[in-house]
Parts: sequence; C-alpha cells; structure tokens
Amino acid sequence: MSIKVNYNNMMASVIGQQGITDDELNKILPLAKSAHNKVEQGRGNAMQGWMDSPYNQTEVVRTIEKMAADIQKRFENFVVLGIGGSALGPIAVFYALKHLYYNELPRSVRKTPRFYVVDNVDPERMNALFDIIDVKNTVFNVITKSGATSETMSQYLIVMDMLKAKLGDKAREHIIATTSESKGNLIKLAKEQNFATLYIPDGVGGRFSELSPVGLLPAAVVGIDIKQMLKGAQDMDERAKSSDIAQNPALAVAALQYIAMNKGKNIGVMMPYADSLKYIADWYAQLWAESLGKEVDLDGKTVNVGQTPVKSLGVTDQHSQVQLYNEGPYDKVITFLEVNNFRTDRTIPNGCESFPDVSFLCGHTLAELMTNELKATRYTLTKRGRMNYTISMDKVDEYNIGALLYLMQLQTAYVGAMLNINTYNQPGVEGGKNATYALFGRKGYEKTAEEIRSAKPDDVKYIV
Amino acid sequence: MSIKVNYNNMMASVIGQQGITDDELNKILPLAKSAHNKVEQGRGNAMQGWMDSPYNQTEVVRTIEKMAADIQKRFENFVVLGIGGSALGPIAVFYALKHLYYNELPRSVRKTPRFYVVDNVDPERMNALFDIIDVKNTVFNVITKSGATSETMSQYLIVMDMLKAKLGDKAREHIIATTSESKGNLIKLAKEQNFATLYIPDGVGGRFSELSPVGLLPAAVVGIDIKQMLKGAQDMDERAKSSDIAQNPALAVAALQYIAMNKGKNIGVMMPYADSLKYIADWYAQLWAESLGKEVDLDGKTVNVGQTPVKSLGVTDQHSQVQLYNEGPYDKVITFLEVNNFRTDRTIPNGCESFPDVSFLCGHTLAELMTNELKATRYTLTKRGRMNYTISMDKVDEYNIGALLYLMQLQTAYVGAMLNINTYNQPGVEGGKNATYALFGRKGYEKTAEEIRSAKPDDVKYIV
Repeated sequence: MSIKVNYNNMMASVIGQQGITDDELNKILPLAKSAHNKVEQGRGNAMQGWMDSPYNQTEVVRTIEKMAADIQKRFENFVVLGIGGSALGPIAVFYALKHLYYNELPRSVRKTPRFYVVDNVDPERMNALFDIIDVKNTVFNVITKSGATSETMSQYLIVMDMLKAKLGDKAREHIIATTSESKGNLIKLAKEQNFATLYIPDGVGGRFSELSPVGLLPAAVVGIDIKQMLKGAQDMDERAKSSDIAQNPALAVAALQYIAMNKGKNIGVMMPYADSLKYIADWYAQLWAESLGKEVDLDGKTVNVGQTPVKSLGVTDQHSQVQLYNEGPYDKVITFLEVNNFRTDRTIPNGCESFPDVSFLCGHTLAELMTNELKATRYTLTKRGRMNYTISMDKVDEYNIGALLYLMQLQTAYVGAMLNINTYNQPGVEGGKNATYALFGRKGYEKTAEEIRSAKPDDVKYIV
Repeated sequence: MSIKVNYNNMMASVIGQQGITDDELNKILPLAKSAHNKVEQGRGNAMQGWMDSPYNQTEVVRTIEKMAADIQKRFENFVVLGIGGSALGPIAVFYALKHLYYNELPRSVRKTPRFYVVDNVDPERMNALFDIIDVKNTVFNVITKSGATSETMSQYLIVMDMLKAKLGDKAREHIIATTSESKGNLIKLAKEQNFATLYIPDGVGGRFSELSPVGLLPAAVVGIDIKQMLKGAQDMDERAKSSDIAQNPALAVAALQYIAMNKGKNIGVMMPYADSLKYIADWYAQLWAESLGKEVDLDGKTVNVGQTPVKSLGVTDQHSQVQLYNEGPYDKVITFLEVNNFRTDRTIPNGCESFPDVSFLCGHTLAELMTNELKATRYTLTKRGRMNYTISMDKVDEYNIGALLYLMQLQTAYVGAMLNINTYNQPGVEGGKNATYALFGRKGYEKTAEEIRSAKPDDVKYIV
C-alpha cells in the first residue's frame, strides 16, 4: 500500500497562526474515535453496504468479467447512460487507468470498445453522440438504482426507440440494466424485456457505488483489472480498522477537515498533479458535497453545514487559480494528489541555449517539471500560511485507485459522523424534483404547480 | 443583443433576509459609477488594451482568416500549446460553437482540422497526444506572450525536436508563434527560424486575451466566424458605455457580486445549463480568480480579497452539487447561464406508460427537460433564500459568445476597480515560479534554493 497522507502543512508548527495546533488536534480525537466507532458499528447495515463492497463480490466479479469479455467481442461502443454517482465513478476510473485519448486510438491499439458516458440530457450532446456511433454496434449500460431518474430514463426511452426501429426484437441485446434487484421501474422493464442485469445492493447509494457493479462493469469493459481495484479498497479498509489517526489515513483527514471547517475553511480544493486523476476530483466533489452539505443534523437541529469542493488541476491551474489560493482569503484547505512515478516520461531537449529562463529546463523530463512545480506550489502556499495536505501514491494503477476511492469514502463517512448528520440522504434535491414534475404537469403535483404559478412575477427593474 | 441579466433572485424582496435590499444596492451605486468611470478612463491604456480588441483588429482578422484557410488546406491537426489564458479561451469557444464530439467526426463532416489544446506538462498526456497525431500533418500554435512560460516552452522544445527529426528544415512550417511583438524569447526564436507569427498587444493580459489573436486563430481554424464574435463584444461594449446598472448588465453584475462578497459570499458558482457552455465556466474561473484574488489593494493595504469560482454544470450537477447549494452554508452566489433555444432537439418517445414517474416525460423534448430542470432548480434555491441570478441568451452562436465573454471581462474589471485592487497582475504566482527555478538549480535562484533546503523537514508524526 503506497498511499500516504502527509499533513505537516495543516499544522500551526509549520504554517503559523492559520494552522492547527497539536492541542486542537488532540482535543478532537475523542470525537474522531467515536465517529470511527459509529462507522464501524454501522458496517454493512442500512446505507453502509458500501463497506462490504471490497469483500462480498466474488460472484459478481465473475459475472461482470464474463459479461465484459462478451461485450468486447460483440460491440464497438460501450455507452453509460447515467447521472451523478452512476456517471462520475465510471468517468474517474476510466480516465485514471486508460489512455488519455482512448477513443481516438484505432481498435487494434485500444483492443476494447470505445467508451462514452452521457451524463446530461442536453439535446445537443445526445444528438452529437448519435453522429459518431451506430447504435447497431453499441451496447448501452443504463444505470439507475431507483429506475425513476428522469434524465437516465429519458435517455433510455430515446435509445430503446432507436434500437427497436433498427433492430426489432434484437434491441434487448443492446441494453444492460444496472439497478435495484427488488424495486423500481428499471428492474420491471428488464424482466419484461429480458435485458441483461446487474444489481446495486440496497445499502449502496449512488455516490458510494463506484466499487459496486455501477463502476465495475464499465471498468471491466475497457480492460481494467477490477479485482485489483477491490484489493486496493480491501487493504485501505484494513488500515481503517484502526481508530488511531496515526494508522488510519482516512480518519486523519477527517479529523483535520473537521477542524478546518470549524475554523471557517468552507472551501476544499482537490488538486491532482496528474491529468489522469483529473476526474477523481469530480467524483470526490459529489461524494463530499452531497454527503456533507446538510441543513439539519440527526437531532433535527438546523446546522447548514458543508464544505464546498473545488476541482483544480496541477500544473494547469497554477495559471488560473493559484494566485487566489496564495493571496485571497484564508478560507480554503488544499488537498494535493501526488503521483511519485508517471507511467511514461519525456525529456525536454535542447534548443533554447541562449535563453536562461528556458534553458534551465533542457535535459530534464516532463515528470521532473510536474514534480518540481508541485513542490514549488506547495512550498509557497505553506510559506504563506495556507492549509494544505498531500495524498501521495507510488503510481496510478488499479490497486491504488481502488484504495484512494475507498479512502475518500471512509473520510466522508467519518466527517458525516463527526458532524452528527445523515451522510447518506439528499433531501435538498427533492424540492427541485417535485418542481420539475409540477412544471411538466405530472399528476399529484398540482399543489406545487399552483405554488409556482402564484410566485411573484419577476420585477422588470431587476432585469438588464 | 439577446443577452439579459435577471437578478430578481439576488434581492431581499424575493429571497428574504439573505438578499440585497434596494437600499443596499442604491448605496453602492456611487462606488459602481466611479468604478465604471475608472475603467472607461483606462480604456486602451496600460493593461486595458483588451477594450480595444473589439475595434482595432480589422487587419489582424484578415491575416488570421487567410492563415486559417491555409491551415485548413494543409493540415489534419491543429494543436494549441499554451496554458492559462492561452488555453482556456480557445477551449471554451471551441466547445461552445463546434460539434460536441468534433474530433471523432470524419474529416468530410468536420471539414476543418482536428483540434487539440495541450495545457499541461503531464508526460502521459503529451505522449498520448503523439499516439494519435502524426506531427507531419500537424500545425502547432505556440502561445505565450512572454516566451518564458516554462510549460509552453518545454512543449515547444519537444515538438520542435520531433519536427526537425522528421522534417528537417520544413519543421518551421509547422509552428505558428502567438506572442509579444517586442519582447521575449519566442519572438526571437520566431525571427531566427522564420515562423509564422501573430502578436499579442502589450495591453492584453492572458486572461483577457480570448478576443485577441490568442483566441481568434484557433477559432478561425475550426471555422468559427470570428468577425461575429468581435461584433458581439462590440455591441456589449456599447451597452457598457452607460454607468447605469439598468443599462449596463456587466455593471449590474459587478455591483451585486461586490455586495455579495461583502456579505460573506466567498464562493461564486458558475452553472451553465448547456453542455456547450461547460468550458466557459473554466475560462471564467481563471478570469475571476486571478483578477480578484489579491493580497493588497492599490494603497498597499492587506486585504486578502477574492471570491472562489466554482464550475458546475446543469442538469448534471443537480445530482452532485445542488444538495449542498440548497442546504449548506449561505456562502454562495449562483450564476445560471441559460440558453433559450438549443440548436437541435429530440423528443422523448413513449415506452413507459405504466410508470407514472417516467411517463410524464413522454412526448416532451430534451430541451424542455433541460429548461424545466433549470426553472425547478432556480425556483427551489430561491425559495430557500439562496442568492442566484441568470444570464440568458437566445442561442449559442458566435455573436452571443463574443458578447458573453466581453460582459464577463467588463464585470471583472468593474469589481477590481470597486475593490481598489490591481485587476491585471498576478504577484501571487511569482513565489511558485521562483521556487521551481530554484528546484531546477537555475542560476540566480541560489538564495531561494537555500531557503527551500533549510526548511524544516516534514515531521513523520504527521504522515500516515
């Protein structure tokens, strides 16, 4: 296990008055331990089914690998229809572990089908997809646990209609449903129409589902070793059995972020220094925002908590966001994701001998440049008293990605427990869903429709 | 000009105590007017050359259009080598105005060359690019005003080395340098080696350069009507001649954001409801963060100001971030980008008659779904007292994109003036650059190197 968390630069002894003192950290440990205990107690129960994912999928993995091998043989394109947790995990893992221009490689190099995730209902995006794929050699993985996600079900209806028009009864062979085994529309449709299916366990919510069939099938289809991903998660879980922050990196991060939030750091920047990890920050943004952004705690008290996740990319965003991180308000914690070894490298050749502000680079490699820029950015932020910590790994591979995702899931669960909130619900999106139903005139939502209709009309003086 | 700003939902009369009262708004108007006056006074001077961009480029546009036509004939691939402002603008405009899977279309449909922007020095990304393009039929647009940007010059050296190895003296035909006319390394190289060149005016900084040759050449190469973009900017500039917030939408937004920042809204979410506008939010994030994130004001007073921009995408991020926006802290302003007419649409067919939670969608279109979800999200946020305003446009086209970018540039300039800061510098990134030089052992940076070496080593007790 090469994943390490280094939080020196969170501490007052390093960054000064904006930092956390040993005393502050020690004072929070009992709460952290009790949160750890709560999470351990809940293991596998209610919405903590995700803690079983590293262990209880031997059968499922076999099924998925068989399914994936079959898809690789029969199809040119694999398209995920899903949104939120059903899309962000598959995207993150695909970008981390596959060629960065995968879809543009010839099939002979790629070996596995082209890969798309359609996580919006923008008609321009949907129509653009049909310009570049032929549904006849495409399989669609429809992912929605409830089978009631408007966006995903709209996509399904459009795709199914096209498939039926082109392929008649064979349409069913082009759909794989990943959904609840016991309830919802999609499982009913799947049974009626005889789709291949994979099941999302009851206790696994969308944002905690990447290590379930939601993420495992898409990964396997493009040739990612899903057993190694699960092994990484397993080994991180082992480390997480300890309630000692010197042993359990997820608990250390949770304690630090909890203290930081209490100190007014309402922004959490996730800044990988590797293009491959860019979409891990997207996945994490959902996990962190939706789990911790809550109005009430478990006692019903109004708390309005939640740290806003910000996605940033090193070194790219040094030329976009780091000015603000260095000089703006002291309102952030920056998490660096550091990779010790890139999978390929390239030397910067000579050619600028007469320019000292360029020639110093010559003979060095791009990996050295990435690494030194990370070091330099971290050094400067630290010197300026800006809270930051680093999660590092030896290299980006299946094992470490599994471990990293699982670490982030654990850390989120711990902070949720420390905040005494429900980490697993999302009541704040119900209002929007109901308003959408009302705007479409759905039966049963007449009251909301009336409420919207009777809202004060916009004042033209506030329109420019 | 179809661009409108509707800020009803910023006002206390609509959202209650979290909102802005008419009184608060009126009180700020003198400051807004004086900021407007300052910006107008500075028009074209110092770093406000960008305000001339809509007007003074007739010649340049002709040159660029000729260059673009030539590139379209001779090359299969157009690659931008640049970072920060040299990358974010070209990416934003390309995604807004071209097919969403452009590079995967056959040339016969695309008509113009495949388009890449390499805005990082990750060796995996750089090597991946060379797996899918042949440098022999590729032209590289090297964009750096100073010619000293480490990342871009490293890329240039690598590419030039490959080109020379493959093409000898003809290598020069594959480079277009976009840089300062008067100073820096790149212009010297360009003259020595006889590259085609385009000039970035002295008064145009990176993040204000999309409407200069930095953005215009990449846009023209893929067939975007750059004259229409400039026309849009021109018309927005006309509206911005007024210092009345009822006439000048950029000044209205500036006044509102300034008040919001003073009320503790340290987060600004940019949330387009259109895949095509996704990267406008990235471009804006640099503009906003780097311009306004400042430690000292113009009087040298320590202020540590700056609102942190957050990129969000509708409807996708309803399933990721909106829970937090609805229920988390009252620390945000949300900007919706609304498109009244999508360029294509698609009807959601029947097929779920027995499921009322899906069938209500059937017969409606994806564009209706996008629109109703925006309305529903906005309605819910407003009901919950969350500050939000909407920038809407009739459709995404060259004219409106030019106007939109220019609006955002103006708004940033106004807020900078209201905050009494230097909107156009970025002193906070110098430290990191110097530390990078020091880590590479560059001459003249020995003191910084010594400082880094003598920094307290990491305490192992803070490493897990």
